[in-house]
Amino acid sequence: MLATVIHAARDIRVEEVPDPVLSTGGDAIVRVVAACVCGSDLWPYRGVTATDEPHRIGHEFVGVVEAVGDDVRDITPGDFVIAPFYVCDGTCVNCRNGVSTSCLTGGWWGSADRLGGFADGGQGERVRVPLADGTLAVVPGPVADDEIPGLLTLSDVMGTGHHAAVSAGVQAGDSVAVVGDGAVGLCAIIAAKRLGATTIIAMSRHPERQELARRFGATHIVAERGKDGIERVRELTDGIGADRVLECVGTKESMDQALRSTRPGGMVGYVGVPNGGPELPIAQMFGRNVGVNGGVAPVRGYIDELLPDVRSGAIVPGLVFDLELPLGEAAEAYAAMDERRAVKVLLRP
Amino acid sequence: MLATVIHAARDIRVEEVPDPVLSTGGDAIVRVVAACVCGSDLWPYRGVTATDEPHRIGHEFVGVVEAVGDDVRDITPGDFVIAPFYVCDGTCVNCRNGVSTSCLTGGWWGSADRLGGFADGGQGERVRVPLADGTLAVVPGPVADDEIPGLLTLSDVMGTGHHAAVSAGVQAGDSVAVVGDGAVGLCAIIAAKRLGATTIIAMSRHPERQELARRFGATHIVAERGKDGIERVRELTDGIGADRVLECVGTKESMDQALRSTRPGGMVGYVGVPNGGPELPIAQMFGRNVGVNGGVAPVRGYIDELLPDVRSGAIVPGLVFDLELPLGEAAEAYAAMDERRAVKVLLRP
Repeated sequence: MLATVIHAARDIRVEEVPDPVLSTGGDAIVRVVAACVCGSDLWPYRGVTATDEPHRIGHEFVGVVEAVGDDVRDITPGDFVIAPFYVCDGTCVNCRNGVSTSCLTGGWWGSADRLGGFADGGQGERVRVPLADGTLAVVPGPVADDEIPGLLTLSDVMGTGHHAAVSAGVQAGDSVAVVGDGAVGLCAIIAAKRLGATTIIAMSRHPERQELARRFGATHIVAERGKDGIERVRELTDGIGADRVLECVGTKESMDQALRSTRPGGMVGYVGVPNGGPELPIAQMFGRNVGVNGGVAPVRGYIDELLPDVRSGAIVPGLVFDLELPLGEAAEAYAAMDERRAVKVLLRP
Repeated sequence: MLATVIHAARDIRVEEVPDPVLSTGGDAIVRVVAACVCGSDLWPYRGVTATDEPHRIGHEFVGVVEAVGDDVRDITPGDFVIAPFYVCDGTCVNCRNGVSTSCLTGGWWGSADRLGGFADGGQGERVRVPLADGTLAVVPGPVADDEIPGLLTLSDVMGTGHHAAVSAGVQAGDSVAVVGDGAVGLCAIIAAKRLGATTIIAMSRHPERQELARRFGATHIVAERGKDGIERVRELTDGIGADRVLECVGTKESMDQALRSTRPGGMVGYVGVPNGGPELPIAQMFGRNVGVNGGVAPVRGYIDELLPDVRSGAIVPGLVFDLELPLGEAAEAYAAMDERRAVKVLLRP
């Protein structure tokens, strides 16, 4: 079958690789209907993290189950499924606590040396899914083609934006600022609105993304950054800063922007993968009672809550996909996201 | 009148100073009935923070109002009052948000160069209290002498321990670990129990403090620190760490202990004043979804909630005072706390 392989920075190829096979009783084989490129895939693409030898890449997909192992109970061949960006059993104490990203038996796509060996995730024609009962979420009934983008966001970006909002404690009537206008930041706007925020400030300098932010529920756009950006946020929030700030980038500058845009007693919900970032300035947080909560989003647990709103059209996160390409053009997908020509690219095998 | 003056590290003297006078319409003059020494007073005492010239010290007291300015509405001469460790107006947006430590017009005892000039706080015979309506909490009815220690804890340590628990989100059924067995840590145990925690782990190596911790509601004592301490906490919490950890010290080591003792998805509530401490290790927090929330405790806002339980005896935080001395022996009070011969010392003018 065909799958995406990264050979080095800026060297993405779609190559023939072995078909996946059932390796443990808990496995499923899923035919990928749609996959995508994650902002975090750009790190090896840009050389920020090293690629020592060629390896498979990708971790977000939806598809149709083709086969399951003998121990699988809840997943059936023919099911349309959403896979989160990690593998989890759904039964351990951390999964039960809602933190399935810390599953005691699970792991990450592309890095598993247990659970039956290597399991690639998504940017290919088929995937072996370990711990299928815990990992996969079934989408009931027939799935229309135009539902695919929205469903695919539940594998990562919509759940991650929601995690930022939940971690920050967004509730009805809050003022919320969102740092980052990538797919996760845009989904965080959706999440903030869905949870009842009434003032939603999108920090964005890109006209197209500003427009999408407004469509998703942003009430104000702040194009300024640094000190000027903080000043603008304060002007919109009684002079004190936003109740909740959602940090969806992961750099030193973005976290600083988030912390300083938060009002005393407020909370930063962060989901931007810390990118060699600074440690958090505790004295500044202490003096103003600004908390920081979040992390790698346990999106599997959010699918049940968000799926009905995606299917009903109450929220339309699939709009973050502004480019769709066949799998064979994965290299162009990476380039388009790297150069910010696309917010997020959907790949069709 | 007499008041405590720090001249240099380990040089505490009780000296004759000018009587306070009403300086603004919002002032009150309070005759101090009892004051105390704060753990943070030990920083200049130990020379951790420099004392460039002799200055007054202290910021926790209860007393009786002797006079009020023309603009004071809610405070009357003769009232028994509790003063928090800071001055606040109670009406600005931050006060209304429950973050009175970030009051837009308030400030700190001993450092105010506005609000009518310098206002000392507590370790003396009398105090000028600016913004009296917002700052002082009236204790209704007659106050018995044996109520004084409990009421005095509401000026700082009981409210601060409560803030750690509230910031961590402690709720019924939680497992809670408390790092620090000083007066604040001990009060945090009271707060955790009061909020319904069912497993309460006190990290303490001192037999007397362990005993008080148990009396306050600790269900387990962990004497180990570092890696062994974390291992012991995990053994008591399904192998994953405590739901909530209350950090009541403020050093690099104590915050590390707290972060690593928290389960994935859990929260550290911290009130230990960061002591030149490290910045927070965001990558470690991110991977495990451990949040950090807290800061300088807005205790003024907690007095209304906690006062009834203190007066009824439902909680007995006054037991943290294990030494009482006349004001004239303030130097011995500092030495006793510095050498950990006393948990907390009550001073009577």
